Amino acid sequence: MTTEPVDHRRLIIAGSGIAGLTAAIYAARSNLEPLVLEGDEPGGQLTLTTDVENYPGFPDGVGGTELVNNMKEQATQFGAEITHGVVEDIDDEVRPFEVELNTGDTYTTDAFITASGASARTLGVPGEDDLMGFGVSTCATCDGAFFRGEDMLVVGGGDAAFEEADFLTRFADTVYLAHRREEFRAEDYWIDRLMDKVEDGDVEIMRNTELLEVHGSQEGGVDHVTLARNESGYPKDNLDDPETEEFDFDVGAVFVAIGHTPNTDYLEDTGVDLDPEGYVKTQGSRGGGEGANQTATGVEGLFAAGDVVDHHYQQAITAGGMGCKAAMDADDYLEREVGTESEAEAAAEADD
Amino acid sequence: MTTEPVDHRRLIIAGSGIAGLTAAIYAARSNLEPLVLEGDEPGGQLTLTTDVENYPGFPDGVGGTELVNNMKEQATQFGAEITHGVVEDIDDEVRPFEVELNTGDTYTTDAFITASGASARTLGVPGEDDLMGFGVSTCATCDGAFFRGEDMLVVGGGDAAFEEADFLTRFADTVYLAHRREEFRAEDYWIDRLMDKVEDGDVEIMRNTELLEVHGSQEGGVDHVTLARNESGYPKDNLDDPETEEFDFDVGAVFVAIGHTPNTDYLEDTGVDLDPEGYVKTQGSRGGGEGANQTATGVEGLFAAGDVVDHHYQQAITAGGMGCKAAMDADDYLEREVGTESEAEAAAEADD
Repeated sequence: MTTEPVDHRRLIIAGSGIAGLTAAIYAARSNLEPLVLEGDEPGGQLTLTTDVENYPGFPDGVGGTELVNNMKEQATQFGAEITHGVVEDIDDEVRPFEVELNTGDTYTTDAFITASGASARTLGVPGEDDLMGFGVSTCATCDGAFFRGEDMLVVGGGDAAFEEADFLTRFADTVYLAHRREEFRAEDYWIDRLMDKVEDGDVEIMRNTELLEVHGSQEGGVDHVTLARNESGYPKDNLDDPETEEFDFDVGAVFVAIGHTPNTDYLEDTGVDLDPEGYVKTQGSRGGGEGANQTATGVEGLFAAGDVVDHHYQQAITAGGMGCKAAMDADDYLEREVGTESEAEAAAEADD
Repeated sequence: MTTEPVDHRRLIIAGSGIAGLTAAIYAARSNLEPLVLEGDEPGGQLTLTTDVENYPGFPDGVGGTELVNNMKEQATQFGAEITHGVVEDIDDEVRPFEVELNTGDTYTTDAFITASGASARTLGVPGEDDLMGFGVSTCATCDGAFFRGEDMLVVGGGDAAFEEADFLTRFADTVYLAHRREEFRAEDYWIDRLMDKVEDGDVEIMRNTELLEVHGSQEGGVDHVTLARNESGYPKDNLDDPETEEFDFDVGAVFVAIGHTPNTDYLEDTGVDLDPEGYVKTQGSRGGGEGANQTATGVEGLFAAGDVVDHHYQQAITAGGMGCKAAMDADDYLEREVGTESEAEAAAEADD
């Protein structure tokens, strides 16, 4: 450890999305006084959604940011503390763990929950960031129903893009799927399924086509987009090519589905098992899902919840469920392996 | 099938607790128009809790019944239908499934989610039912914090009773554990742990002691209880024995922890795997927790969520998470194996 720790904690939770905050609520109610580290996307991906209609308990819907803020208030009033910081490194070979933040601060902690989420990849084109939550979305399940009857553009060529396009046919007039090259990365299953919908006239595939710009306003939503097409693929890399055609195209919503990246870089040098895409393998996800300790990783005392684990369901309610489990698992671990704080203090005093 | 089905459904969900209603919200949003069967404990176990403080999103807490009613409204406005009925029998050897209710009605359905929950066992003593939710509880995690500083009585001798007694020491002045005989069914781990707390003066064990009556009012909560003790055990069966002592005892809360029974009798003759206690084994609980289809049972098209599966965490948010997964898994199954309704209708028309 290069710097003296600023504080010791019973439990540190990395991430202030639904998984992290639910873990914080449960851990705080168990008197663990958890420290929640809020990173560069405070509140996590749910804050990208304007209205959450599918989180159970809110029949009139609830704002993504409002829901997250409610959970923060709930966690803090039971004794959780929330501070800004992104974990740069965690030393899992010592107990307590040593956690180094990008702020320069170092903490020690008896237990740790990784709930740092995944970030949707975006294209970085003009208009995308401004209109995110106002017609541009990275989550069809969250937002598809808001654009009932509109033409919709899905960008991507993998499973997620096909799944989103398929899902959106429930609401869209026509779904357009734009992919930058000829071939798709998606499974045949998804391709076959979507091709049936192309035959039905519900979907149109735009191969060798890339999104250049999204036009619209936060008040009025997406008005239209600018696309580029080049039959040799990757038109955006070949804008000077006379074969590249640029054109405006009317759609009412844009879904960017070019994948997610779990925020787990800081776990790479630890004993935590990551899959090739960086998702954390837990006891539950590896096959010990029966009964307790489903959120345990390969490192004793280090638990994982939410989108760092889940590459399939990815809903607020599922992330919350996992966050709750992680807090209960961490609490069991602390009682079993570390003892109560008063015991630890008593031991420290006895050492004097 | 003895009677003609009254209706065919894409999806029937048995149970109107948090798992069933969350499944209904998600399934309704996927245009499956699910039928939710509400049994004899409408809203499930959460309705036994007056104030829910740990369901994420409600910093001021929410009434158990209010939360359930919110979810019902949410599910129905997206197209779910809720009707009264307890499943007596399900024929899983035919497709569509045939579902027979205690109302005499029979339905057919393409997919089925079992979310019929578990029922806490109760003692059946005077005062218990009247004061349930008003000082008598079957859930320490839900209600323990409401009785901070009070003396509390836990009834039971198994793991659940010990775990609840242990948990309640965070809040109670003294926790009294009453068990009807000398020996405990609980694991040594739990017994050792609680005995440490007995040494610390936080817990007192009352062996060979049974609860005869709870006294109090819905306004004022629990005032005191009547207990019976007989050193040979089972005092309630031996009230005429001169060795049996009856006495009043002051406590401010009573936690009945004599176990739960999953409501899965109707699955016994199906292909669904049940563990010896009647809990449903799912793909997730059996070890295929990675990725999709975690709520699948051994029967294709039949999914399970909530307290019929979970014998450990048993929280509203975890039940909701599983309900969401079951709806998404059922939706995938229906798209993959059964086709969309319009396809089914088209096939029916083509058969004409």
